[in-house]
Amino acid sequence: MTTATLIDALKSLLEPGKLLTDSDSLNTYGKDWTKHFAPKPLAIAFPKSIEQVQAIVRWANQHQVALVPSGGRTGLSAGAVAANGEVVVAFDYMNQILEFNEFDRTARCQAGVVTKQLQQFAEEHGLYYPVDFASSGSSQIGGNIGTNAGGIKVIRYGMTRNWVAGMTVVTGKGEVLELNRDLIKNATGYDLRQLFIGAEGTLGFVVEATMRLDRAPKNLTAMVLGAPDLDSIMPVLHAFQSKLDLTAFEFFSDKALEKILARGDVPAPFDTECPFYALLEFEASTEEVANQALETFEYCVEQGWVLDGVMSQSQQQLENLWKLREYISETISHWTPYKNDISVTVSKVPAFLHDIDAIVAANYPDFEVVWFGHIGDGNLHLNILKPDNLSKDEFFAKCVTVNKWVFETVQKYHGSISAEHGVGMTKRDYLGYSRSAEEIACMQAIKAVFDPNGIMNPGKIFPL
Amino acid sequence: MTTATLIDALKSLLEPGKLLTDSDSLNTYGKDWTKHFAPKPLAIAFPKSIEQVQAIVRWANQHQVALVPSGGRTGLSAGAVAANGEVVVAFDYMNQILEFNEFDRTARCQAGVVTKQLQQFAEEHGLYYPVDFASSGSSQIGGNIGTNAGGIKVIRYGMTRNWVAGMTVVTGKGEVLELNRDLIKNATGYDLRQLFIGAEGTLGFVVEATMRLDRAPKNLTAMVLGAPDLDSIMPVLHAFQSKLDLTAFEFFSDKALEKILARGDVPAPFDTECPFYALLEFEASTEEVANQALETFEYCVEQGWVLDGVMSQSQQQLENLWKLREYISETISHWTPYKNDISVTVSKVPAFLHDIDAIVAANYPDFEVVWFGHIGDGNLHLNILKPDNLSKDEFFAKCVTVNKWVFETVQKYHGSISAEHGVGMTKRDYLGYSRSAEEIACMQAIKAVFDPNGIMNPGKIFPL
Repeated sequence: MTTATLIDALKSLLEPGKLLTDSDSLNTYGKDWTKHFAPKPLAIAFPKSIEQVQAIVRWANQHQVALVPSGGRTGLSAGAVAANGEVVVAFDYMNQILEFNEFDRTARCQAGVVTKQLQQFAEEHGLYYPVDFASSGSSQIGGNIGTNAGGIKVIRYGMTRNWVAGMTVVTGKGEVLELNRDLIKNATGYDLRQLFIGAEGTLGFVVEATMRLDRAPKNLTAMVLGAPDLDSIMPVLHAFQSKLDLTAFEFFSDKALEKILARGDVPAPFDTECPFYALLEFEASTEEVANQALETFEYCVEQGWVLDGVMSQSQQQLENLWKLREYISETISHWTPYKNDISVTVSKVPAFLHDIDAIVAANYPDFEVVWFGHIGDGNLHLNILKPDNLSKDEFFAKCVTVNKWVFETVQKYHGSISAEHGVGMTKRDYLGYSRSAEEIACMQAIKAVFDPNGIMNPGKIFPL
Repeated sequence: MTTATLIDALKSLLEPGKLLTDSDSLNTYGKDWTKHFAPKPLAIAFPKSIEQVQAIVRWANQHQVALVPSGGRTGLSAGAVAANGEVVVAFDYMNQILEFNEFDRTARCQAGVVTKQLQQFAEEHGLYYPVDFASSGSSQIGGNIGTNAGGIKVIRYGMTRNWVAGMTVVTGKGEVLELNRDLIKNATGYDLRQLFIGAEGTLGFVVEATMRLDRAPKNLTAMVLGAPDLDSIMPVLHAFQSKLDLTAFEFFSDKALEKILARGDVPAPFDTECPFYALLEFEASTEEVANQALETFEYCVEQGWVLDGVMSQSQQQLENLWKLREYISETISHWTPYKNDISVTVSKVPAFLHDIDAIVAANYPDFEVVWFGHIGDGNLHLNILKPDNLSKDEFFAKCVTVNKWVFETVQKYHGSISAEHGVGMTKRDYLGYSRSAEEIACMQAIKAVFDPNGIMNPGKIFPL
């Protein structure tokens, strides 16, 4: 069968105009936020129903054409890149919230619902969808589930996994599975829903999901605290966690703050210069809670763990404090940073971070390392800025070596080579640093159960 | 090979005295709290290390002998019954808490740690293990994970699944897998940990688990509310959930209360007689929260959803109110009840319960139906008491018909035939009412990945 005939057959399964092959579309829909891979899809398909997704998967099995799912394409691991003549299945036209249940506090979403859309929908109903991160204005629920998206509120609310009451998937065999029936308690064998969460579309595609919503938080209040060293951040976290239910506990280094303040549009939290800062957030639902936070702050100062601090007194101040953390990624993007998203258990963070700093300093003393991340979850974002005197190519060549050191250190600390960005293509060759050979073999055997012909997002998680 | 030689080979893998074949042991360790199956194990093995468990599994593979895991044997689905010449692997001597980390708030437990032991350990360290249920004094962590145990605090804290940071399993192939490294964020492919949770030992045995602990709750306070009908309970739940973070929301019917009060050792909550009662609990961490609870109560009374109510003012009153709910199961056991543990989404509870009541009343008007359960999770415990004029056999013969009606109604309401007790042997023939044929086929294929010779707890979840 010629490519043209193949594409015609696929086109007949979709509504008119819902299969694109122009080069603009191929370029746009063939990639995500990673820039290392040249997109090269065969076509972009826009299904409008579960039946159409099922038809696409059957067509793909019949003709042995690989499929790549595409949500908001905000991924950072090339999980949604189509670089090998795949057909991209984009969920842009399956973007409706189909049902809301106020007693169950659930919203049934098509895969293409944008995270922000769900957040706003929840708000309109006096509720809250708590999974939140920088790309929530573009990322889609299907993609969030495929990568088990985390973000800034995980310490309180957990990952996307916690909010999926039920979901409908089309497996690599073209079967439709309705998983978990939106139940809170359901002890009827293996929870297949959990397998598809974080599977990056390699077992099948999420086409619909019933998401749980929560009570809206009351009077969110943030504190930014300056610490004399990283080791002090741990007892600070511990002290606050024993007293309050934190909704966030983030950190960033002096180098990160320096770049933010240089922008000129974000006020400094306070004058005292510190090597590390923590940003914590909680619901100051009563005055008593706010007082408890202040008492804990004072206790931390007495212990020498905190040098200075500030607490938001208004929504505006809350937002300004958050900018100190949220603007980092965008701000340092001017320095073409090497980025890595890794995690260890919370208690190992200081030792782990010292190790990486020492290795980089010993080998590349001219590299500027910027740390920030979700320290309350043990999730660190390592960023190394490109020195001006190095070309991009020279810099990234050196970073390949850094990668190896980082992953070796992750392995030594029994951590994860991908905390929340997934494996995709960028980390598939390093999977062995976090998962044993036996585990990887089990995962591949499980993939074969759901996708015997290997058409679902091949080359992601596992090598091609 | 003769049975005696087989057993000698097994004995050599264990410490002296750690393989029992006397009839008392076979009877004790061959069954759980279900009484319908006659225990008939070959032997009871008590491993003391992961290596010994691994050796047992290899021996079982070599000789094609089936294994049944045994924890506290408090299960209600015959998930831990050995009725076919299996070797029971009992975790009684792997009962140590090996490690505690105050910053990660985790405790690394051997599979045989008793739930209450972990709860007390947490308390000694100023923390809290929130999974709690009637059998927590005997049930073991390994069994809790195998059944994804729920209980009375799920509305706030979730099932056992939420508290497993990482775990070590021995698969049916005899491989040791260390799953998830105790990380909060770990996006490195399929989360195999989730598969083993709730798998009832059919994929492998949980030998160690790192359990998360939580901040201890402050000033737990309970309310018992009387409602004019079941339909009113839903808006009451809704009203309280919008204002407070509930730690429990249970319900029971007038028939349940009547039996409890007849004991004479539990005081009535109030004088007003109501057909349904809700017991809710929350942290009255500040006076403001307690006031909010009272205001919500008053609002519910104004709306006509609540006829009367009481709020605990002391630890003693809290305990007395809980007895109204916790004593039900034991109290009605005198009537040899038919029991069923089922769930639907919360919003469907009233219609579902009405349907079941109507079916039973139409067919067996002399049957007394007692309802109670975790209504905040949609989890209902249906109990039908044996009329005095029926023999046990006659009664249970009629209950087989009831079973079918119940499961048909579960299917109609898209619910679960087992909310929190698992499938085991008692519900394996009804699995199709809650899971599709395609799902069941996927589950069996996954079992084959981890247990190709079918030696791990055969006949549980799936038919033999």
